[in-house]
Amino acid sequence: MQTTTAPAATEAAEGPAKYGVFRLAYDVANEDPALTRNWKKTVHIAVTGASGQISNHLLFMLASGEVFGRDQPVALQLLGSQRSREALEGVAMELEDSLYPLLREVSIGIDPREIFKGADYALMVGAQPRGPGMERADLLDLNGRIFKDQGQALNDVASPDVKVLVVGNPCNTNALIAMENAPRIPRKNFHALTRLDENRAKCQLALKSGKFYTNVNRVAIWGNHSTTQVPDFVNARIGGRPAIDVIGDMKWFRNEFTPTVAQRGGALIKKWGRSSAASTAVSVADAIRALVTPTAPGDCFSSGVITDGNPYGIPDGLIFSMPCRSTGDGNYEICDDFIIDDWLRSKINASVDELVKEKECVGHLIGTPNPVCRITKDDEDTWLPGEN
Amino acid sequence: MQTTTAPAATEAAEGPAKYGVFRLAYDVANEDPALTRNWKKTVHIAVTGASGQISNHLLFMLASGEVFGRDQPVALQLLGSQRSREALEGVAMELEDSLYPLLREVSIGIDPREIFKGADYALMVGAQPRGPGMERADLLDLNGRIFKDQGQALNDVASPDVKVLVVGNPCNTNALIAMENAPRIPRKNFHALTRLDENRAKCQLALKSGKFYTNVNRVAIWGNHSTTQVPDFVNARIGGRPAIDVIGDMKWFRNEFTPTVAQRGGALIKKWGRSSAASTAVSVADAIRALVTPTAPGDCFSSGVITDGNPYGIPDGLIFSMPCRSTGDGNYEICDDFIIDDWLRSKINASVDELVKEKECVGHLIGTPNPVCRITKDDEDTWLPGEN
Repeated sequence: MQTTTAPAATEAAEGPAKYGVFRLAYDVANEDPALTRNWKKTVHIAVTGASGQISNHLLFMLASGEVFGRDQPVALQLLGSQRSREALEGVAMELEDSLYPLLREVSIGIDPREIFKGADYALMVGAQPRGPGMERADLLDLNGRIFKDQGQALNDVASPDVKVLVVGNPCNTNALIAMENAPRIPRKNFHALTRLDENRAKCQLALKSGKFYTNVNRVAIWGNHSTTQVPDFVNARIGGRPAIDVIGDMKWFRNEFTPTVAQRGGALIKKWGRSSAASTAVSVADAIRALVTPTAPGDCFSSGVITDGNPYGIPDGLIFSMPCRSTGDGNYEICDDFIIDDWLRSKINASVDELVKEKECVGHLIGTPNPVCRITKDDEDTWLPGEN
Repeated sequence: MQTTTAPAATEAAEGPAKYGVFRLAYDVANEDPALTRNWKKTVHIAVTGASGQISNHLLFMLASGEVFGRDQPVALQLLGSQRSREALEGVAMELEDSLYPLLREVSIGIDPREIFKGADYALMVGAQPRGPGMERADLLDLNGRIFKDQGQALNDVASPDVKVLVVGNPCNTNALIAMENAPRIPRKNFHALTRLDENRAKCQLALKSGKFYTNVNRVAIWGNHSTTQVPDFVNARIGGRPAIDVIGDMKWFRNEFTPTVAQRGGALIKKWGRSSAASTAVSVADAIRALVTPTAPGDCFSSGVITDGNPYGIPDGLIFSMPCRSTGDGNYEICDDFIIDDWLRSKINASVDELVKEKECVGHLIGTPNPVCRITKDDEDTWLPGEN
């Protein structure tokens, strides 16, 4: 009886040890060559917080082929914590039982230096949840340490062109910390998730305009994934026309639109009793798909990316959500044709101020000389309701 | 300002009231005719237990297009309970925020006569969970009452050709009760989910043979979705050869294979701390996809279906898992070329006996004259571990 087979010759043998049925090699020779001729090299995707609620949706979306495409084999490298070690195995067992034909490898572990090996994508879902009464500065430090360590691990073992998407909050500053601790990886490869905010903003514009959401595009989220975020109605379009003209209610835009988007997670948790794991996972899938499929002409997607050299006068050295477009090769450029009116500018500046302050508070984690933290418990709490 | 638009002319206006953004009509005229020319009429899918864990995965799979196809608009009609009314709204909000282009309608409610209106598919995920110390006969009755009511509702308001898939346990007998209470709907349209068992069986055959699971096919599950289920290794193939020859270990097949498959849910709950909602949802998606895509030549899929006129001498009038094939039009036929050896026959007979007993115990719900229940608390418990 045969219990293992050699890896298929076309795949590199590097990466962490495989789990269960995924120790077996997929044999491309059994498939119809007409089907497999155009198949790409397996994409290796590391996911942190892999036994949590968001990942429990996300991993199955990744495995199904709906994110990277039906001709793209995938390997999942799952990072958990010592505490969640058994749950991680449970997730791997469910992935085994799902028999996804494109899912070629699953690895599980608790050491980022093992699990990030050879990763082409790193989806950083895990973060320390905010405990009761925990102050923002403490939380920044607590998560910052995790992301410093994980950034260094990415630097050491991931693919040198790994794309990193941070979901765990505070995601902009966590992404900044990982980036600053991974000098070998291009700075523009780091993203913080604001696609959920974009999706929620599009839904609210659809609801208000009476046009189905497929008509809504060019909706940028600017800034931090916090209550200072700026959902951009100035450049948004509905059915090809400016959203401002279609809706024609500036009071709603200025007073209701932004808080409705920012408080959506809170509204949902009140109904649902728990945070919106499924739609967060959908937005992660959307955010990755945006990088690996060409952006429609004239459209954009939102992502928190490095501001270095941006065309909007936002200070360099921040991870800041801006409108982006992609040719579908995993990279992006910042859209340069968005109009910034005075209202947008003032809101963007407020989000810049917040991110600068956050950056100061994690100075000790990113090599800032003589760092000083100006965030105190008397500052307004800009943590998004309904998020950990 | 426009707050609603008329439904698109091509869609019937029947069905339950729509939720939130789904009150708005999708306007096919905005789309590229090259894309929409071949689009089909919206499929209406009712889902019960819609705020539960399995549905929380399943609904997003249905909405994404991975089940019914990328050219198939879908409407989701979600049934919850009074107790879960708010959670149901939370699910609908997450579906709104996910902006699935193929998801055209979402309705939520607690009245099956409202929610089942016009349904083309009814996925009966909800069931009363088994309480501590609850006896099987009591559970059969408790769930039977729900499925009697829901069967009558389907009969009254669903599409006359609705396909019904029962996931809530005991699913075979629940499906039987729904079927017997829906005389207007063809008996062969009722299914009980055994696809999860099939998937788990394929995974175990892959693990044991050292061949990746894509090489394993023709794996039938016979009988009841309980510990009397019969995962069929006699007809199973691995890489085109009989699984028995490839693995060559009859002791493993007879003593370990079946319990490993049947106890997989229990093994998983020990690791994971909760039941296997994600892989169950995947298997529901697989089960529906099996009906709407043509079965590969020589292959089969497992489903609990009505035994009337089956080619294997199984008594008529039971919902019994058997190997099926489909031309992809939503219907199926029972494969007639499976070999039943003495071992399989004895196991199948045991599962028949169990289902006959279950049927007797719900006689009062399906119009049996003078029903007598022979299941007592001294009977062996055949409830699958790890399932509610």
